[in-house]
Amino acid sequence: MGEFLNKLESAALRNDSMLCLGLDPDPAHLPAGIPYSRDGVIEFNRLIIEATSNLVCAYKPNLAFYEALGSAGVAALEATVAAIPSHIPTIADAKRGDIGNTARMYSAAVFDTWGFDSVTVNPYLGIDSLEPFFAREGKGVWVVCRTSNAGGGDFQSLRVENGTQSELLFESVIRSVLAAPGAADVGLVIGATAPAELIRTRSLAPTAPLLIPGVGAQGGDVRAAVQAGATGPVVINASRSVLYGPPEGGLVESIRSRAAALRDELNASRRAPSPA
Amino acid sequence: MGEFLNKLESAALRNDSMLCLGLDPDPAHLPAGIPYSRDGVIEFNRLIIEATSNLVCAYKPNLAFYEALGSAGVAALEATVAAIPSHIPTIADAKRGDIGNTARMYSAAVFDTWGFDSVTVNPYLGIDSLEPFFAREGKGVWVVCRTSNAGGGDFQSLRVENGTQSELLFESVIRSVLAAPGAADVGLVIGATAPAELIRTRSLAPTAPLLIPGVGAQGGDVRAAVQAGATGPVVINASRSVLYGPPEGGLVESIRSRAAALRDELNASRRAPSPA
Repeated sequence: MGEFLNKLESAALRNDSMLCLGLDPDPAHLPAGIPYSRDGVIEFNRLIIEATSNLVCAYKPNLAFYEALGSAGVAALEATVAAIPSHIPTIADAKRGDIGNTARMYSAAVFDTWGFDSVTVNPYLGIDSLEPFFAREGKGVWVVCRTSNAGGGDFQSLRVENGTQSELLFESVIRSVLAAPGAADVGLVIGATAPAELIRTRSLAPTAPLLIPGVGAQGGDVRAAVQAGATGPVVINASRSVLYGPPEGGLVESIRSRAAALRDELNASRRAPSPA
Repeated sequence: MGEFLNKLESAALRNDSMLCLGLDPDPAHLPAGIPYSRDGVIEFNRLIIEATSNLVCAYKPNLAFYEALGSAGVAALEATVAAIPSHIPTIADAKRGDIGNTARMYSAAVFDTWGFDSVTVNPYLGIDSLEPFFAREGKGVWVVCRTSNAGGGDFQSLRVENGTQSELLFESVIRSVLAAPGAADVGLVIGATAPAELIRTRSLAPTAPLLIPGVGAQGGDVRAAVQAGATGPVVINASRSVLYGPPEGGLVESIRSRAAALRDELNASRRAPSPA
């Protein structure tokens, strides 16, 4: 286990939490009085971090919500990463995937320029497109395998012939990633809305770290997500369901309260016995 | 044919060119005296555009080379798009792919905030992840199908069972994309380093626009790329082989001369008879 997974484990223990909070400033949902601008996004994220830094195991900004503001949004992203306490690991939700020299530039962007601890990547371009990310000592890489959207199975769940194996495409991705040289701190992204695929992933990769989006607003299966943590680390992401809601008791307090409720729900699921 | 393809066809006719130039400022290769900084990148791109705007059918900045400079690089990207003459179509080489609400933010970034005419996208997350791009009237979308890197076939060329069809994954992607509702100005990205796959793509999509990277530094098959243009538009991209080289006769003149030579080579291949 490398530096990134150590940091993730420490934060999860310290805050007794599997909850990763997505920092996704959405112009359609920002609270009253917070504009969708560089300064508004920075302010909103600082409030969220103040409210939740003792409740989460990681923060995951999705880059799309910053890029939509252009260079000003990317400046807000940079200020956001700087505002996250150094003991809490960060995940750049970038889903990048490109060929060699380009992948190296994306890797430089997320790890060096922006200072993220880890990044999500898309495997469609093949294992060599992921190597510039895998090669970064101390950093983590989350490979998107089976996503939480309705069309996630369009290609990911096609049956493929891979050598002597007949399996689903996302299973081929998992096997290939686990076998890739230099893939030390590598985790897999599997949506909580696909519980059967989550169970299948755990059987292929019993101890791999899993990043599981799709609980909360997307209605994913909390119990399946938590149970996947029995043999290896799980990081369960929610964004909209925690960030946005009625500001009862004040904005910071309302975010804290929703984050605490979800963290506690996840922990309670872990402690509850499995259904017979 | 929509607004984007009209613009592409007009530029190709006006400059008698299939050549798309990748605007990829690479810190390892920038000419002497041009720093890898916001202002250096803007200056370099303005020189390239000055040198080549009557030689190309499109410009394709790859976002990785800007993001590696952070918000300053994204500001340089914004200045670059503004410096491209309005009659030459732009391609944001972003290879984005994410679920619904996030895909909408990426679409807003490239089309609204940055003002690109078209974008490259990654299909791994399924057809619904592409719809927010397809839905943008007047804009173009290039779906990455078969890439030019050595590992491009790792997953893209796996044999899949899709309904009653047994085919390769990239063929499934092509069929699904062509059948997607609302996919008007949609093209396919197929690397010139995989000529057999290029021929196969043309048989599945005889008239679809193709964006073909991989000639030049990557050593792809120029003739196969050009021949694919017999039944539908092709946009053939080169980056490093044109941007970087000995600055004979001055920087602008040397870039112009390499771009002109490649444009003429592509045109000569088109006019040459096929091998018997």
